[in-house]
Amino acid sequence: MGETMRAIVKTAPGRGAELQEVPIPVPGPGEALVRVKATSICGTDHHIWEWNPWAEKRLGPRLPQTMGHEFCGIVEALGPGAEGVQIGDYVSAETHIVCHTCPACRRNQYQVCLNTSILGVDRDGCFADYIAVPAENLWHNPPDLPPDVASAQEPLGNAVHTALAEPLIGRRVLVTGMGPIGAMSVGVARAAGAAQILVSEPNPYRLELGAKMGADVLINPAETPLPERVAELTGDGVDAVLEMSGHPRAISDAVACVIPGGHIAQLGLPPDTMEFDLNELIFKGIRFYGIVGRRLWETWDVMSRLLADGRLDITPVLTHSFGLEEWAEGMELMDAGLCGKVVLTVS
Amino acid sequence: MGETMRAIVKTAPGRGAELQEVPIPVPGPGEALVRVKATSICGTDHHIWEWNPWAEKRLGPRLPQTMGHEFCGIVEALGPGAEGVQIGDYVSAETHIVCHTCPACRRNQYQVCLNTSILGVDRDGCFADYIAVPAENLWHNPPDLPPDVASAQEPLGNAVHTALAEPLIGRRVLVTGMGPIGAMSVGVARAAGAAQILVSEPNPYRLELGAKMGADVLINPAETPLPERVAELTGDGVDAVLEMSGHPRAISDAVACVIPGGHIAQLGLPPDTMEFDLNELIFKGIRFYGIVGRRLWETWDVMSRLLADGRLDITPVLTHSFGLEEWAEGMELMDAGLCGKVVLTVS
Amino acid sequence: MGETMRAIVKTAPGRGAELQEVPIPVPGPGEALVRVKATSICGTDHHIWEWNPWAEKRLGPRLPQTMGHEFCGIVEALGPGAEGVQIGDYVSAETHIVCHTCPACRRNQYQVCLNTSILGVDRDGCFADYIAVPAENLWHNPPDLPPDVASAQEPLGNAVHTALAEPLIGRRVLVTGMGPIGAMSVGVARAAGAAQILVSEPNPYRLELGAKMGADVLINPAETPLPERVAELTGDGVDAVLEMSGHPRAISDAVACVIPGGHIAQLGLPPDTMEFDLNELIFKGIRFYGIVGRRLWETWDVMSRLLADGRLDITPVLTHSFGLEEWAEGMELMDAGLCGKVVLTVS
Amino acid sequence: MGETMRAIVKTAPGRGAELQEVPIPVPGPGEALVRVKATSICGTDHHIWEWNPWAEKRLGPRLPQTMGHEFCGIVEALGPGAEGVQIGDYVSAETHIVCHTCPACRRNQYQVCLNTSILGVDRDGCFADYIAVPAENLWHNPPDLPPDVASAQEPLGNAVHTALAEPLIGRRVLVTGMGPIGAMSVGVARAAGAAQILVSEPNPYRLELGAKMGADVLINPAETPLPERVAELTGDGVDAVLEMSGHPRAISDAVACVIPGGHIAQLGLPPDTMEFDLNELIFKGIRFYGIVGRRLWETWDVMSRLLADGRLDITPVLTHSFGLEEWAEGMELMDAGLCGKVVLTVS
Repeated sequence: MGETMRAIVKTAPGRGAELQEVPIPVPGPGEALVRVKATSICGTDHHIWEWNPWAEKRLGPRLPQTMGHEFCGIVEALGPGAEGVQIGDYVSAETHIVCHTCPACRRNQYQVCLNTSILGVDRDGCFADYIAVPAENLWHNPPDLPPDVASAQEPLGNAVHTALAEPLIGRRVLVTGMGPIGAMSVGVARAAGAAQILVSEPNPYRLELGAKMGADVLINPAETPLPERVAELTGDGVDAVLEMSGHPRAISDAVACVIPGGHIAQLGLPPDTMEFDLNELIFKGIRFYGIVGRRLWETWDVMSRLLADGRLDITPVLTHSFGLEEWAEGMELMDAGLCGKVVLTVS
Repeated sequence: MGETMRAIVKTAPGRGAELQEVPIPVPGPGEALVRVKATSICGTDHHIWEWNPWAEKRLGPRLPQTMGHEFCGIVEALGPGAEGVQIGDYVSAETHIVCHTCPACRRNQYQVCLNTSILGVDRDGCFADYIAVPAENLWHNPPDLPPDVASAQEPLGNAVHTALAEPLIGRRVLVTGMGPIGAMSVGVARAAGAAQILVSEPNPYRLELGAKMGADVLINPAETPLPERVAELTGDGVDAVLEMSGHPRAISDAVACVIPGGHIAQLGLPPDTMEFDLNELIFKGIRFYGIVGRRLWETWDVMSRLLADGRLDITPVLTHSFGLEEWAEGMELMDAGLCGKVVLTVS
Repeated sequence: MGETMRAIVKTAPGRGAELQEVPIPVPGPGEALVRVKATSICGTDHHIWEWNPWAEKRLGPRLPQTMGHEFCGIVEALGPGAEGVQIGDYVSAETHIVCHTCPACRRNQYQVCLNTSILGVDRDGCFADYIAVPAENLWHNPPDLPPDVASAQEPLGNAVHTALAEPLIGRRVLVTGMGPIGAMSVGVARAAGAAQILVSEPNPYRLELGAKMGADVLINPAETPLPERVAELTGDGVDAVLEMSGHPRAISDAVACVIPGGHIAQLGLPPDTMEFDLNELIFKGIRFYGIVGRRLWETWDVMSRLLADGRLDITPVLTHSFGLEEWAEGMELMDAGLCGKVVLTVS
Repeated sequence: MGETMRAIVKTAPGRGAELQEVPIPVPGPGEALVRVKATSICGTDHHIWEWNPWAEKRLGPRLPQTMGHEFCGIVEALGPGAEGVQIGDYVSAETHIVCHTCPACRRNQYQVCLNTSILGVDRDGCFADYIAVPAENLWHNPPDLPPDVASAQEPLGNAVHTALAEPLIGRRVLVTGMGPIGAMSVGVARAAGAAQILVSEPNPYRLELGAKMGADVLINPAETPLPERVAELTGDGVDAVLEMSGHPRAISDAVACVIPGGHIAQLGLPPDTMEFDLNELIFKGIRFYGIVGRRLWETWDVMSRLLADGRLDITPVLTHSFGLEEWAEGMELMDAGLCGKVVLTVS
């Protein structure tokens, strides 16, 4: 292990980032140093790369900063007092560092910790040869879990958290938005026993990912109004919607498509405030769940077993693989909407 | 029992209604004829009286029709095959007549039955000496339950349904909107063990009703911005909001006032679609429940015992009592916002 | 349709029953007459046939009575006021006739109605060419559902009810007892996303049924003590036990095998009171669910969709098929423990 | 602060304990040293004092050891790395020290941590002037909380955990066993909105504690068989039982007294295995919850607010107060069953 390493660094405001040689981080108290095996690109990383208003506001004052938060790797060193992991362990990471003392943490709702710090957003990330993270954030992987899958567990956890908002067994489910997390949630809904899975996505490339993950019906809402198509297929509507897109139209359609007494799990973030018909949601007695992050550690526990026991296969979503230095190609593919999850192999 | 009776009839579109002498209804198959002892005026009745756009659309084709749905009375006669009640029984009524066969009913979510018919909205109501209702919709009252309380159980059921969306014990609760149902929900939240109850209402008369029902803190949002005041009082926010007003500002404030990981039970109906910040709701991981009607018969069961065992007293909300023929005075008081629940004594 | 029909009648106390020609029943008010296509034999029927103490006590005063409760068929006639079905409909039946008015029914817990009447136990059953049942107890089948599967939905409903006591997705599950319902519950657990399924059964024929339904590990507790084997396989124990056997040893083992914080769903009925270590159950913080019947109609709803959408295949459990007149062969096979579910084809 | 302190030490097997002068403990890494203000005596302490078989087995190899686990006090010193508390803070303690890494902890079910270490059982306790405890186990008290109440929060937490197994609002509840935790659970059930509360206890002194805490009906099961009395009072049974005694008869009675579809929360530990009728529990579809410890930190959160906001008053249960050196008087009172909770004032 030398003294410097490769890292994709957001150096300045505006579109882009730079591959740089930077010092290998030193793990602080309670931290572990992890040698990255694989890392994957999230929509959030793409927002930082393209520098949208959210990125400007959240990261503006912090630059330069290493990008990335989804990864797996091998523990290489331990800071003072780091517990629960050993050098040589094969790990992935929960990317939300939580405070354990706020009211949300005290109620075991760590996913909404009031003092969350996120890897690659609020501190240096994992698009690099090494990353220092709190040891308590690490999750042990079985040795035979492929690194690309191990890295993608973080976004898969979002899909699991969304899909498990309520039991789906024997339920008709609509998933709106076939980005990587949306497509993975189709697989999770299948694993959870959903009886019929409809997916909606205007991008044909992504719509096809839904099929590969087990959807029963593909709907392109640019061609057929979603509520009409769902009514044709189901009569009274679906029992649940997993809304993964954040598009205002998809959110309104979700309310229109769900049967009275059903539920909507909302992971997608709309770009802004939106015009919303709460009357329909109320009259239908809908339970609407805002979903963020992963439940610690229940989501990881469930996800890990589904992968280990072969109940869930997310490899159809892992469409592209590059070396770390080809990271920009991944960003361009995401721009074009011609990919599922892009993985960067680091070591 | 003669052949005709008094009834407040919506005879024609536009503001108003008329006290008329009409034939006493004949109970059909499965129905009971109830002699009304007391009836109470709901906001819905007021909407029909003033003839707002909703009333125009829903009742326009049906006039003339007897108004009213909240009541209690004595069973006077039974139609063929009517079961479960006896002549002389002292009853109140669930006002939603459900189909038992739609998917919602099959899942015991009768409150969102796809084929609901509502007394006084979709068929003749109870602002009259007699009403014919399906026997299965009747609820037996204990003999010592005062008629004004017995009549007000229907809206109280809305309050109970809203307050029981999740357990409130030891939780800080904000109730927005001190109309009669909002004020009753304060009492229910107290009975449910809420630790601190804040209420918000711009109308001073109604705000005071909240105090009478057990609120710990009264907030006039016209004087102090609600989120600021709640932050002062609670630090991180309340654990739950019961949103009873339907005002778009109150709904947005509800999202702002609730702690991450908390919930909002939404009974109030906004007048139209509204601008809504779903991002805040999602980032906070809020569970948002659309609430309508009463759960059959769990809501009635809980409510009835709370009243019978003295755990809940709603009489502070029953501010005015008139004879049936003075019904218009009640409507005027509601116009002025200078009342809680108005009860009409019929017999 | 003639005036008489074939029926397997329990004519007198003691082992056995008789195939007789009896009058075709006339559907009473609210009832439908169903021409039986297929019927299947339950352990309860076997108890009645062999005339165990329970049968003596429950049916002694009622004989003669036609046996059987699991079936499917075609609606042939309707009694006065029968609603919800049409002549010609292809139906199965919920076999618990409930009162709708007791406290349990009022809370939608129909499966524990205080006044339940059971087909083939408290009134004439379906081992016959025709049966009269309340129309409200009938469930519509899709036309392409095979009659043997349609008949076996009643016991499958027990399996679904048991398996759905809590979500099983990503959980390790032990199923004790591979009678037909136990074996079916393995398939339901698989459909529900259970991560690893262990089954325990001393009868090798039945143990093999568990494998056919998707179990990952087969354990013969006569060869290896169950808690030891489970500890070897799981370390700290399984997350859930579906106890389908009623054997006192299996029940005690269930408590020993479940991880602290896990749950046990108990469908099996022990033959008598038993010696039980509640201390272990309490110290482990176990949630122990007594399970009986099917939730109306949620269990049927979930089950029906799982079958229709191909998420669940119970045909490996349907090991034997006979004509109605060969019913005694089915009883003998059950005696020998050399069958899964035995189906009788009637028409 | 000198170098030694008073402590009640279990020095040797057999009945009794000794007041000794021992070294003040030194807080280790992550620990806080707390100066004890008040401590209270638990049944567990009494078991250790009288040296029952459980105590022999669990503590035999560990003596000498300071007794006691319920307390409140002031933080006097911090060991290295202790976080979350400051010197001078007024605290109580969760007495279960958990591992954070076992499967139960990973699912936030800390109350059943597989590696729990308990104050005063597995390490030195709080019947002393000072105690060293992990800082993370401390709970901040409001400054005006009386020390006797603050100390008794630990057992109150058991009562809260038991009472909150399911919502009690509008439910009829039977509490069996009026030891201090049972009596406190009556108050919690009242705060939670229970509609009618029946208590059962053969000791007249303790039965009266139930009345003081808000019970509606007192039953001495030595005079009237409990199931008969409950049937007289309720007809079909209570909706919930909080079984706090551990007496085999009370446990069997609990099953007999609960309505079909109801639940039993079982905190009492029977002395041994017992004869149990699971058939009745299963046929009634009862949910039976083994309860141990307190949910971290949800139980403390709810309890703390109920006390702070005056929704719950446990002072009627705090029947006796002594100085630390009079501890043996407390033990004698417990022997005689003539006390509720005994508090020892230390500083």
